[in-house]
Amino acid sequence: MTAQNRLNGIDIDGLVATVQAIQADPNLARFRFRSHTDWVSGGNVKTRIQGFYGAGHEDTSRAAPFTLEGDEPSVLLGTDKGPNAVEVVLHALASCLAVGFIYNAAARGIQVDALEFDIEGDLDLQGFLGLSEKARPGYEGIRVRYRVKADASQEKLLELCDYVQKTSPVLDILRNPVPVKVSLEV
Amino acid sequence: MTAQNRLNGIDIDGLVATVQAIQADPNLARFRFRSHTDWVSGGNVKTRIQGFYGAGHEDTSRAAPFTLEGDEPSVLLGTDKGPNAVEVVLHALASCLAVGFIYNAAARGIQVDALEFDIEGDLDLQGFLGLSEKARPGYEGIRVRYRVKADASQEKLLELCDYVQKTSPVLDILRNPVPVKVSLEV
Repeated sequence: MTAQNRLNGIDIDGLVATVQAIQADPNLARFRFRSHTDWVSGGNVKTRIQGFYGAGHEDTSRAAPFTLEGDEPSVLLGTDKGPNAVEVVLHALASCLAVGFIYNAAARGIQVDALEFDIEGDLDLQGFLGLSEKARPGYEGIRVRYRVKADASQEKLLELCDYVQKTSPVLDILRNPVPVKVSLEV
Repeated sequence: MTAQNRLNGIDIDGLVATVQAIQADPNLARFRFRSHTDWVSGGNVKTRIQGFYGAGHEDTSRAAPFTLEGDEPSVLLGTDKGPNAVEVVLHALASCLAVGFIYNAAARGIQVDALEFDIEGDLDLQGFLGLSEKARPGYEGIRVRYRVKADASQEKLLELCDYVQKTSPVLDILRNPVPVKVSLEV
């Protein structure tokens, strides 16, 4: 691979080949992601993420799992060994918007020099605690402010920002309902 | 604090006091969580999570930030330095359901000995790639299977599972729309 084929850290030839392969066989686009989580104590959990299905086969490229730790801060009666669940959602959103922006910038020939996100979300704990019918358990609203330095006009970057919002998996997951089936084995 | 006041790693007296304080002053239930994310290269980002507002004041109890790394696996043209954004969402969901189950079990006097979650989500990459109008960018569906060992009847545990689903912040965020405002500074 030559230096010319990379932009923003992305293998442009690989990106084009991926798009062409999926256009030829849309089944390659079907992915199934997985996680396994063990409760430790109190609000503390450990999640392992490793294998997934995608591009027509079970992906075994990860030699070891990623481990994510979740907990609650002391004011929420936890031991603060990791960010809590709703804080992690903010990271997922930024991570997703970054990938969307960087990959699509690369596809359009836009070089990005810097990209950063500040996100905040408002939550009324009365919902979780079952103290109010009016308060929903989750975020009432999330605000994303992001800053970019790139070699493109403001118009092109705002257009890219719009496109990324239309195609971001996590933004879609937040803005629109996802069917979630929960089953408990006792 | 005596041993009798803890169950499942939760300070029961603290939980009761928190609920009473919020019933007396619902403004204490207002939380604002935050994240800051820097893009590194390609699909790789680093997120710092530290301070938040809640219980009537800015919480500065965390001496250092948590750092979360996001990336894409090689088949998605990343360098696999961390789980991707939609995998992280599965962790957030398990983390949230675990907290809901454990805290509410503690409040009901149910001792939990073990709790684990397997979650999977199906995603059609054609949405992210803009190759199909029919494919949404995010998860088409998520399935949670969880197993619990606890000193309560199956009926009580299934009832608890239902209650947790009604009050879980991340489950609410997934199942119902959240307003997300995105603004880009060029």
